[in-house]
Amino acid sequence: MSLSVKHLLGIKDLTPEDIDLILRTADNFKDVLQRPIKKVPTLRDTTIVNLFYENSTRTRISFELAEKRLSADTINFTASGSSVSKGETLIDTVNNILSMKVDMVVMRHSASGAPHFLAQHINASIVNAGDGINEHPTQALLDAFSIREKLGDLKGKKVALFGDIMHSRVALSNIYLLTKMGAEVIVCGPPTLIPKHIEKLGVKVSYDVRKTLEWCDVANVLRIQLERQNKPLFSTLREYSLYYGINKAMLDSLKKEIIIMHPGPINRGVELNSDVADSKNSIILDQVQNGVAVRMAVLYLLAGKKEE
Amino acid sequence: MSLSVKHLLGIKDLTPEDIDLILRTADNFKDVLQRPIKKVPTLRDTTIVNLFYENSTRTRISFELAEKRLSADTINFTASGSSVSKGETLIDTVNNILSMKVDMVVMRHSASGAPHFLAQHINASIVNAGDGINEHPTQALLDAFSIREKLGDLKGKKVALFGDIMHSRVALSNIYLLTKMGAEVIVCGPPTLIPKHIEKLGVKVSYDVRKTLEWCDVANVLRIQLERQNKPLFSTLREYSLYYGINKAMLDSLKKEIIIMHPGPINRGVELNSDVADSKNSIILDQVQNGVAVRMAVLYLLAGKKEE
Amino acid sequence: MSLSVKHLLGIKDLTPEDIDLILRTADNFKDVLQRPIKKVPTLRDTTIVNLFYENSTRTRISFELAEKRLSADTINFTASGSSVSKGETLIDTVNNILSMKVDMVVMRHSASGAPHFLAQHINASIVNAGDGINEHPTQALLDAFSIREKLGDLKGKKVALFGDIMHSRVALSNIYLLTKMGAEVIVCGPPTLIPKHIEKLGVKVSYDVRKTLEWCDVANVLRIQLERQNKPLFSTLREYSLYYGINKAMLDSLKKEIIIMHPGPINRGVELNSDVADSKNSIILDQVQNGVAVRMAVLYLLAGKKEE
Repeated sequence: MSLSVKHLLGIKDLTPEDIDLILRTADNFKDVLQRPIKKVPTLRDTTIVNLFYENSTRTRISFELAEKRLSADTINFTASGSSVSKGETLIDTVNNILSMKVDMVVMRHSASGAPHFLAQHINASIVNAGDGINEHPTQALLDAFSIREKLGDLKGKKVALFGDIMHSRVALSNIYLLTKMGAEVIVCGPPTLIPKHIEKLGVKVSYDVRKTLEWCDVANVLRIQLERQNKPLFSTLREYSLYYGINKAMLDSLKKEIIIMHPGPINRGVELNSDVADSKNSIILDQVQNGVAVRMAVLYLLAGKKEE
Repeated sequence: MSLSVKHLLGIKDLTPEDIDLILRTADNFKDVLQRPIKKVPTLRDTTIVNLFYENSTRTRISFELAEKRLSADTINFTASGSSVSKGETLIDTVNNILSMKVDMVVMRHSASGAPHFLAQHINASIVNAGDGINEHPTQALLDAFSIREKLGDLKGKKVALFGDIMHSRVALSNIYLLTKMGAEVIVCGPPTLIPKHIEKLGVKVSYDVRKTLEWCDVANVLRIQLERQNKPLFSTLREYSLYYGINKAMLDSLKKEIIIMHPGPINRGVELNSDVADSKNSIILDQVQNGVAVRMAVLYLLAGKKEE
Repeated sequence: MSLSVKHLLGIKDLTPEDIDLILRTADNFKDVLQRPIKKVPTLRDTTIVNLFYENSTRTRISFELAEKRLSADTINFTASGSSVSKGETLIDTVNNILSMKVDMVVMRHSASGAPHFLAQHINASIVNAGDGINEHPTQALLDAFSIREKLGDLKGKKVALFGDIMHSRVALSNIYLLTKMGAEVIVCGPPTLIPKHIEKLGVKVSYDVRKTLEWCDVANVLRIQLERQNKPLFSTLREYSLYYGINKAMLDSLKKEIIIMHPGPINRGVELNSDVADSKNSIILDQVQNGVAVRMAVLYLLAGKKEE
């Protein structure tokens, strides 16, 4: 079995079989991570460069851990302290790095489509670690892994995405993945933060947080990313919290238990109260742990693809 | 034998037996560092994250070398270029990193008590690499190691700490350690830079540099950290140097040889003249070398503690 | 066979035999880099610190890859986020790092002569990765390696250096190396960017791009580094491009094929048009690839030197 793609640019390009293969491979790596010896020699003699043009803590560390536990050699590159500030083009920077015999590129960039552009011009495999407001495929994969781990399967499950759907690459990747795998999806947030015609992607739209919570099995609450909004709807975060924040009282009033997810970093007291983030319903830290296993699976499968 | 603590938050929490165990373990690692092959497989399969919320050269590199020579996997994290700038709480950042199955956290933070706060909320072992104006325990341990290496024992030795005692975490950790191990301690500096009631910690106070130099076996000269002072006593560093700087002529006028120490980085010509810093009395570079051995000992003993 | 020097401070200090030894050793490492397993255990148990006081992408990554493929342990140090901002002297910083038992220092610094100054005061081997407007020896070595790979030998070959000769450490190192190895060299650029009396270094001067292109076998086109010029000759980069930029039409009008080189990062459309940079005449990406092999050779030979 192997992936149908050479790069992981977005969930949009994957088949349901690809997604299933990644999740099942991640099962194995999650087992490895529970052992005292968490390292496998799988990618020994593979060099991976982490090319982060945007700030990141958890994603960068998660990839670096995944690489080290696969025994790959890693090179870190951040936009600051680099020749990017000397005006070099993206493609020249990457071609130069690849000329040094690098096997794989993990890349985060503020421009949507940057990794797709690169993929047309370079030979190494590219893993998109987030591009602008387009996709963040490994986040959607670890979200899917976490739901599946908790509920057994994705098919037929009711997943609600809350928050700023318009500017969220996590939302878009989740929508592609969940609809491909047969889950039902509702996006819920302020009207100005939900793109028009999003129903064409196979999801429903709601502006009512309470009704959506009552409907769903899983609530994936996105971070309000004020830095991406040009015209904020709400004058203050306090106001956002009042209308769209989720608290424990709301969960307690439901007739069932639902799962709470968040891609992090959390704005505590804004989109999610601490009594929810730290409750037994929350699988937020499981998501983080699963991220390493899922990224190991992606790197492993793409490395195998290269050898074919 | 094992430590009485799970974390190294400060010297305050250690017993004399703990300190003795760390120093004796460091003896072994110092031997290792003299060999051509300086690496031991002891912490293979241990992942350590270096979490530096404050700038640092020597401490960060010293810990990283200690970790690599123990064959641990290391992840570096600095506050810049991280989700800290996105407003995430300290505990969320650390919990996220730990969810990725990290075994130990080495942490520097500008807030006094930050590692103690963390230790109450997380499972991994924490090593305090300096917290605000509170403690810098590995510095005090390497200082003690260096004195003991030179003078055979700490008990009964006369150690003077010179400079800004009020704002120095190195001073506080040294005071705890030296008094626990039976050394006599005098703190010496401008009155405004010595905390009131410091005698309660078992040390004496002097405002006279010459008399203190005549009294002591060891002079540990602290860095004047102008960045930590709100109301500087002296209008210029030149003025500080005139009253409290130590030069070679002063050492030559003593009837005995004393040992000169400094935690670095040195303000040459301010608290210490170059003719002292580079003299045969100075063990400043031994301190740096011993730092790696002492940190290997701390990491090794805390890793063993975890397995118990 | 071994080098006549303990450090690689500049090409100026090397004998032709040294240069030949480095290039022949790099041949072996280039072979290694073509194999699926690109790692050799040669420098296991060697610790190398990369001390970059100036921003760099390709040089820093190239050295780091060279070190990792030799199985050395590497420590990265950049000026930002360090005690340099606390006013520590260069020599104190380096002595501190070396006290931690570091075997080799790779150093980039904005001050010409910084590594030479260090070499007089420390014990470890130093590799100059660029010092101010003085030398960039590993760049000249990889340029020589690339010419030799393409044309078989350096002796008697005609090499032209185009651009800002005055402020270019790449130019100076190339001039030393090429004249030592019996190549003919012409430097070509605007009069204000060519130092007076440069003929004393054994090169000829031309202000005519077309005639120089007709003369040479190899055109090494330097980056216009506006950041190093105090009084720019040209009001705009557009104007520089008009008079001194090289484009495909110019190459096509020559009666022979010449080789195009550039140390990167390229200002596309300024000193070099894209139709030249990406043409079959260009060996720019070979230069980058050869850089890793050449740096492996330098590190390997200096490590051997230390053991003598």
